[in-house]
Amino acid sequence: MIKKAKIKAAILIIGNEILSGRTQDTNTSTLANWLNTLGVKVEEVRVIPDIESTIVENLNFLRSNYNYVFTTGGIGPTHDDITAQSVSKAFGIKYEVHKKAFKILEDYYKPGEFNKGRQKMAWMPENANLILNPTSGAPGFNIDNVFSLPGVPSILKSMLGGLKNTIVGGEPIKSLTISLRTVESEIASSLTKVQNENKDVEIGSYPFFHAGKLGVSIVIRSEDQNKIDFCNFEILKFVKEKRIEVVDR
Amino acid sequence: MIKKAKIKAAILIIGNEILSGRTQDTNTSTLANWLNTLGVKVEEVRVIPDIESTIVENLNFLRSNYNYVFTTGGIGPTHDDITAQSVSKAFGIKYEVHKKAFKILEDYYKPGEFNKGRQKMAWMPENANLILNPTSGAPGFNIDNVFSLPGVPSILKSMLGGLKNTIVGGEPIKSLTISLRTVESEIASSLTKVQNENKDVEIGSYPFFHAGKLGVSIVIRSEDQNKIDFCNFEILKFVKEKRIEVVDR
Repeated sequence: MIKKAKIKAAILIIGNEILSGRTQDTNTSTLANWLNTLGVKVEEVRVIPDIESTIVENLNFLRSNYNYVFTTGGIGPTHDDITAQSVSKAFGIKYEVHKKAFKILEDYYKPGEFNKGRQKMAWMPENANLILNPTSGAPGFNIDNVFSLPGVPSILKSMLGGLKNTIVGGEPIKSLTISLRTVESEIASSLTKVQNENKDVEIGSYPFFHAGKLGVSIVIRSEDQNKIDFCNFEILKFVKEKRIEVVDR
Repeated sequence: MIKKAKIKAAILIIGNEILSGRTQDTNTSTLANWLNTLGVKVEEVRVIPDIESTIVENLNFLRSNYNYVFTTGGIGPTHDDITAQSVSKAFGIKYEVHKKAFKILEDYYKPGEFNKGRQKMAWMPENANLILNPTSGAPGFNIDNVFSLPGVPSILKSMLGGLKNTIVGGEPIKSLTISLRTVESEIASSLTKVQNENKDVEIGSYPFFHAGKLGVSIVIRSEDQNKIDFCNFEILKFVKEKRIEVVDR
């Protein structure tokens, strides 16, 4: 099997509402799960405020260190929506009216309703590729390896379908979860042994408390199903020896 | 009024399970809301994998750029719990058995149950201050301006009470939310005007979709209640002029 290169992504969440604790971010989990299926692994997430210089600095770091960067938030019509102008600045390119985006928005709204606030959503980095928005009209945009999406989770989700063919991934990342009626310290040393003997597989251990009972979920992740199966076998071996119950979760 | 200095914090979330999309982080919102009440503003969040060099690098950046850094995750008994050793490395101090933590754990478990996996949870940076854990025994720890907490949300929450007197904050950050039956583009220009005339107040605009209806929440944040009240007055003025309905949310 020819091994494809690992493709890595970062997510840049732009928004004071996440930092203040007012809003719970759910876009990270949506994007990470979707990217897994395309063979792209999210390796870093940063949440930063709506400040232009902060956006520029973080975006320039992330886009030169990861294959893909996804930004969320800050592309609406109000004064605190400064993602498009910040991305333009980060790339050192013009921030201007995108003709195609303008046309899409003009067609989307009723005559007389395409006001100045809405026209702001057509301002983008020069020559950006549009990311179509089947939910609420206003498109996102893509420049080089940076994809700018809205912050509203339902709208973001509806835009991912149109991006699928743009993202070139590696082998999809597969995972397998084994949930056990035990506590971490009972399995720690046996699990360490399996991890040490299979260094290229990612084995995580996560305690849970569900329906009044404690348990541990072991998650095995790899691009290679055979390696997952082998670790699964090794783990179930010590689980059986220790007479630990395997449970559904 | 003597103005207190702004106290800023960062959160470092350590955990592959958040990056993979498997687990939804909720600790950011818990910590940010709690810190707001103490007058500490979260200005950056980073989510990174369980890799020692990555933890060291990010922690050293954040702890020199913010008044406080809170890490979550990676302090349990399994192989992927490497926060304590990584924090020790970041500070260049010894990673060793913490006598008081060892005693706490020894007393917490029944005789014979304090096994090697559990003893690992007593390993910490030399001379760390303990953060007591009323839920499951194993303490977190504090070195200088860095506070290391567990990843399990219910346990993390139960440990914050004991930290209250350790954190020196500024003026508590107050906020006021006005929810309107409108869309952002209808209020964008009026809201921009209020923001421009009150540059030291943070005004955010967040569309919502609730019970089948669209709306916008405007959030005003400041340490100064008078400034919040003034912006509230200015916003309600244009809301009335535009005959926009104010709603509960």
